[in-house]
Amino acid sequence: MKILRCATFDQLNDPQVQQMDKRNNILSQVEELLLFGNALADASRALILEQMHSGFSVALKIDKSLVTNTDKAAEILLRNLISTKYPAHSVIGEELVNTAVNSPFVWYLDPIDGTEEFVNGMPTFGSIISLHYYGEPVVGIIDHPALDVRTVSAYRRGTFCNGYQSHLNYCPSNENIRLGISKKANFFRRGDQTRTFDKLTASFPNIRIFDSCFAYTCAANGSLDAMVDFNVRSWDISASKIAVEEAGGSFVVIDSSSLDPLISRYSIVFGKSEVVKEIINSLKE
Amino acid sequence: MKILRCATFDQLNDPQVQQMDKRNNILSQVEELLLFGNALADASRALILEQMHSGFSVALKIDKSLVTNTDKAAEILLRNLISTKYPAHSVIGEELVNTAVNSPFVWYLDPIDGTEEFVNGMPTFGSIISLHYYGEPVVGIIDHPALDVRTVSAYRRGTFCNGYQSHLNYCPSNENIRLGISKKANFFRRGDQTRTFDKLTASFPNIRIFDSCFAYTCAANGSLDAMVDFNVRSWDISASKIAVEEAGGSFVVIDSSSLDPLISRYSIVFGKSEVVKEIINSLKE
Repeated sequence: MKILRCATFDQLNDPQVQQMDKRNNILSQVEELLLFGNALADASRALILEQMHSGFSVALKIDKSLVTNTDKAAEILLRNLISTKYPAHSVIGEELVNTAVNSPFVWYLDPIDGTEEFVNGMPTFGSIISLHYYGEPVVGIIDHPALDVRTVSAYRRGTFCNGYQSHLNYCPSNENIRLGISKKANFFRRGDQTRTFDKLTASFPNIRIFDSCFAYTCAANGSLDAMVDFNVRSWDISASKIAVEEAGGSFVVIDSSSLDPLISRYSIVFGKSEVVKEIINSLKE
Repeated sequence: MKILRCATFDQLNDPQVQQMDKRNNILSQVEELLLFGNALADASRALILEQMHSGFSVALKIDKSLVTNTDKAAEILLRNLISTKYPAHSVIGEELVNTAVNSPFVWYLDPIDGTEEFVNGMPTFGSIISLHYYGEPVVGIIDHPALDVRTVSAYRRGTFCNGYQSHLNYCPSNENIRLGISKKANFFRRGDQTRTFDKLTASFPNIRIFDSCFAYTCAANGSLDAMVDFNVRSWDISASKIAVEEAGGSFVVIDSSSLDPLISRYSIVFGKSEVVKEIINSLKE
């Protein structure tokens, strides 16, 4: 759970590597890593757009969610690019078998988040690509090929959406809060949390449901005031923490099913800090 | 309520004009009217994209919804184009004062549906433009300038989304239904209908909420299986009836507050016919 719970490098506590060393080490590399992350997003975007037009095949996964050959092809492409450039880095991806993490650098890959939307011709799907260093995100990218929208963030470099810097400072009054939320089906995935859905939508009735990472993009650039997602995986949320924190917002894990990011499901609230606080208070009531 | 309740021209019952005459009359004109509708959408799209980049001002309407000078400028532009080309036609628009309808031809205009999204930088807003003839829609256009997506339909000409014809024939099994629905706030607008929202989302948990006409576009092209919207106005839904019916789907008004389309609020279900039936049955239970 280090991945998600550590607020900053300053709070890391690793006896083998000095915190200051880590911070300085990553600061000197972040520009190069960010450039490479953008190159990864360029490559997956080109592949996805090509297969959107040429056609793809669809299958059901064990969890009944959809997967296409495009999801897998994009992940293979990204893994190959990473292993060529940084052979020592580890990778955790949604679609292929993951091996043990044995590097302080871990790439999280979700080649198509919102595969159901991709299959049904809705442009809100996207690729999520992030790099974590000693459990802390240092690069986060959410790319929407069909929308031509990309959100890019890096440690101490801020968050930019299509070149515009994001500042999550203005907070609306309660009645105007624009809340992104999971579809109700996600609240069934572990036990019955549908009451939480009903309660949240009653307290914050100005809701949007995209069921894809476009909602995360909107929370990162302030188009939505906050996002609440239930029972999602590490690769779904791997880029959002750094995206909202570098924009001045907050990212809070309210529940997780395991300490292992390979298998855990997370429930999260993130976005403008005051709104995140208000939502968490509402959930406690 | 003629506007929305008549299923086809064949069901119209006007003593002064023979049904066959009406149908033949409109069939001979529909090509020209459709071309003009597309020209209207081109004009509003150009204006909206220009003001998206150059900037616009925002105000609150009496009903607390947002309006921008772009909404008004687009409606003025469309009204001018219509009165120049078809001075005898009537117009009902969202943003300007409407005068009495005195023509069998009535244009419905919603220059920006989803103004809150437009203001907050979300690309799902759109322009809704439709032409009704003796209370029946004959041309319906939903245009999304920021997405470069346009759905166009005309009487006996089918429905096309960016050039691809829409066929709403395949119906998924109940558990997989992809349902578009209003935000919960819309279920407050007349009395408390929030129980209906809770019931619908429990029966059909795979939901999407866009709060803009992009949901209508998705229901018209089959990306969503159906759409449920509560307490919306005539100009919001004026293009959707012909769009889904020309694609082989169904459009049902389940409630309306008045016989006058200038003031009425409608609750509607539309999309793939089997899914629409299932939703209406679920609402009756």
